[in-house]
Amino acid sequence: MSSLPSTTPRQPVYLDNAASTALAPEAAAAMTAAWTTPGNPSSLHGSGRAARRLLEEARESIARDLGARPSEVIFTGGGTESDNLAVKGIYFARRREDARRRIVAISSVEHHAVLDPAQWLADEHDAELVVLPSDSHGFIAPDKVRDLLAERADEVALISVMWANNEVGTVQEIAEIARIGAEYGVPVHSDAVAAAGHLPVDFAASGLSAMTVAAHKFGGPQGIGALLLGREVACVPLLHGGGHERDIRSGTQSVAAASGMAAALRAAVANLDETTARIGALRDRLAAVLVTVPGVQVNGAYSIDPSRALAGVVHVSIAGCEGDSLLMLLDAKGVECSAGSACNAGVAAASHVLLAMGFDTATARGSLRFSFGTENTDDDVDVVAGVIGEVVERARAAGLLSAAGARTGGVS
Amino acid sequence: MSSLPSTTPRQPVYLDNAASTALAPEAAAAMTAAWTTPGNPSSLHGSGRAARRLLEEARESIARDLGARPSEVIFTGGGTESDNLAVKGIYFARRREDARRRIVAISSVEHHAVLDPAQWLADEHDAELVVLPSDSHGFIAPDKVRDLLAERADEVALISVMWANNEVGTVQEIAEIARIGAEYGVPVHSDAVAAAGHLPVDFAASGLSAMTVAAHKFGGPQGIGALLLGREVACVPLLHGGGHERDIRSGTQSVAAASGMAAALRAAVANLDETTARIGALRDRLAAVLVTVPGVQVNGAYSIDPSRALAGVVHVSIAGCEGDSLLMLLDAKGVECSAGSACNAGVAAASHVLLAMGFDTATARGSLRFSFGTENTDDDVDVVAGVIGEVVERARAAGLLSAAGARTGGVS
Repeated sequence: MSSLPSTTPRQPVYLDNAASTALAPEAAAAMTAAWTTPGNPSSLHGSGRAARRLLEEARESIARDLGARPSEVIFTGGGTESDNLAVKGIYFARRREDARRRIVAISSVEHHAVLDPAQWLADEHDAELVVLPSDSHGFIAPDKVRDLLAERADEVALISVMWANNEVGTVQEIAEIARIGAEYGVPVHSDAVAAAGHLPVDFAASGLSAMTVAAHKFGGPQGIGALLLGREVACVPLLHGGGHERDIRSGTQSVAAASGMAAALRAAVANLDETTARIGALRDRLAAVLVTVPGVQVNGAYSIDPSRALAGVVHVSIAGCEGDSLLMLLDAKGVECSAGSACNAGVAAASHVLLAMGFDTATARGSLRFSFGTENTDDDVDVVAGVIGEVVERARAAGLLSAAGARTGGVS
Repeated sequence: MSSLPSTTPRQPVYLDNAASTALAPEAAAAMTAAWTTPGNPSSLHGSGRAARRLLEEARESIARDLGARPSEVIFTGGGTESDNLAVKGIYFARRREDARRRIVAISSVEHHAVLDPAQWLADEHDAELVVLPSDSHGFIAPDKVRDLLAERADEVALISVMWANNEVGTVQEIAEIARIGAEYGVPVHSDAVAAAGHLPVDFAASGLSAMTVAAHKFGGPQGIGALLLGREVACVPLLHGGGHERDIRSGTQSVAAASGMAAALRAAVANLDETTARIGALRDRLAAVLVTVPGVQVNGAYSIDPSRALAGVVHVSIAGCEGDSLLMLLDAKGVECSAGSACNAGVAAASHVLLAMGFDTATARGSLRFSFGTENTDDDVDVVAGVIGEVVERARAAGLLSAAGARTGGVS
């Protein structure tokens, strides 16, 4: 329970870094520096060329840190745009080449930014949506990809499997999946939004055709991301007009945001081993604290093999509780976490990711994600340890009241 | 001619504000303030709610400054995305309602961000592209819109006419065009990227169904814009996944960029009369200087009626010169301007806008745009006055050499 006097304004303990990180100081400095000169990177004069130079330096830095060539980095407005561009753009390009390629195969644990474009292609553009099943820890078995391709490779437009899951932290065997795709000549895209800056990510070594990253998940600004796209991968643009990014994405680039994204990624990659070790230790301590509370179960790859899980994510289900109640009670105690993906927040539905992992609805709804960032310390874990028991008790009491109300027909 | 000693590093005279403005101090302050708290505006905890509050305050401020309701402001990644969303999204929605509505009618002087999506709809989605002709000053006669609708209103999906032209500064009778569209029940979109923050722009009073704005044209950051969209206007999304912006645009919003955009627009609108008067006087002085050079002609609405032209733009054609030569020679003298839209820079083609105004190719290619911003002063005009004569002479000499080379088969 919180022992701070109420007259001291507290900084909340921010454990929702998977939703959005704080802006890294390196990113803030780079953006502020970029602001000091105006300039459209498409202008030919000195200021324009200076802006272009900053943009291309950012592109080169990001490419280097992700194992890609600079020409493979296409700046976009964020992860959602990158995922839409990859899924729709590659689908349309592949179908144009061969109309039989109707299948869009995605994993069952994808973010809505992949799931919704794939569903839209099925609803509006004659795609056949094939969903690759997950096991109970969020893993997609590469054999499921092989089974599909062995039977129907000629019909597959593309495969999209996320590198690491944003909710439960499970890391896929992405290189193996990419290898199988390559074997059958089918492009594989991966949403690496939760992975980039948090795991070693090497685009060339992965064998992927396309990969999505978003700056605000690794200390960069919101509103910018990139699609890494192999030079040989055909992709139809979503946004037309000017062709600024390799004729695949149009729109004046944000030089400052690109500089901020590059600086944040540089810092994240340079400190990756140290951060992973430090944050992994915080995660281990928090998980150990949480499982002392009765009815708490840790989910995802971490519960069976921490080496195949994101270092910064603890995902738990808490029997007899509603995730939203837990979240609000923790928030009142100064602890900020998530009851699911922030990208779906406000909707009190069970996470499709947990349902795909075989959770029943009640367990899925009684879940919390804690996600660490570079600024978290042992003190933050202490704060959670001090309040979690009481919070769970109160959430359970609220759940029992609510269930009783439901049984007697009352409104809860 | 420049009399500054070469040992003094000079700040260039930046007269390319129509390509991209410097970031306004108000915008920088708002963005820096927004950075101090992390938070995804879709998160439910305190930091998330604080981010959401900043985002909604930005939305309300922008709505107020553009005569719109907050729910009509849809944040996007910039002007190009907004134009794509309006043109494609309204087209698809209108055709879904009635398959006969195949016509996309745009003016001949649109930016590529409208022109290219419209052309794509014609090439790939069975649209009929109707181009509304311009007169020699860049005006689209509202009667041309009426003529089209009187004959074929049932077949028109949408009309898109820009509010003010980014190259020559001509301001359209946009409210009259919107009124004619409304009379026939046809939605009218306007690309107001060059107008917002530079002219009184009132979305409600304009009668438009949709309107595009981009922050970096009025002192805000690059990489953010908005589509203003009437509540009753159906529009199919381009980006799926989460539905963050009224289910019409998905992707985590950039809270800092939205705050910066709102602050810049607030400053631009608050100072509009003063800025317009001051910048208009600089424009008048520059135009007077330029026409003293033999062979210089001022283009666009300004040459016949300055009250129907953007206050900050002077567009000239200079006989016997290549625009790119002029631009480079001026750049070497520390004067930065444009030989066309920056969004097409690098391509040594004549501007489609000037060709649509009836210019021959040589005249179109021998053109320059000077565009003023809030930071420009009389000294900047003095610098241009000091160098323009020599620059034109040298560009003409280069043009003669080049023409002689071409005649003798030489490479120039």
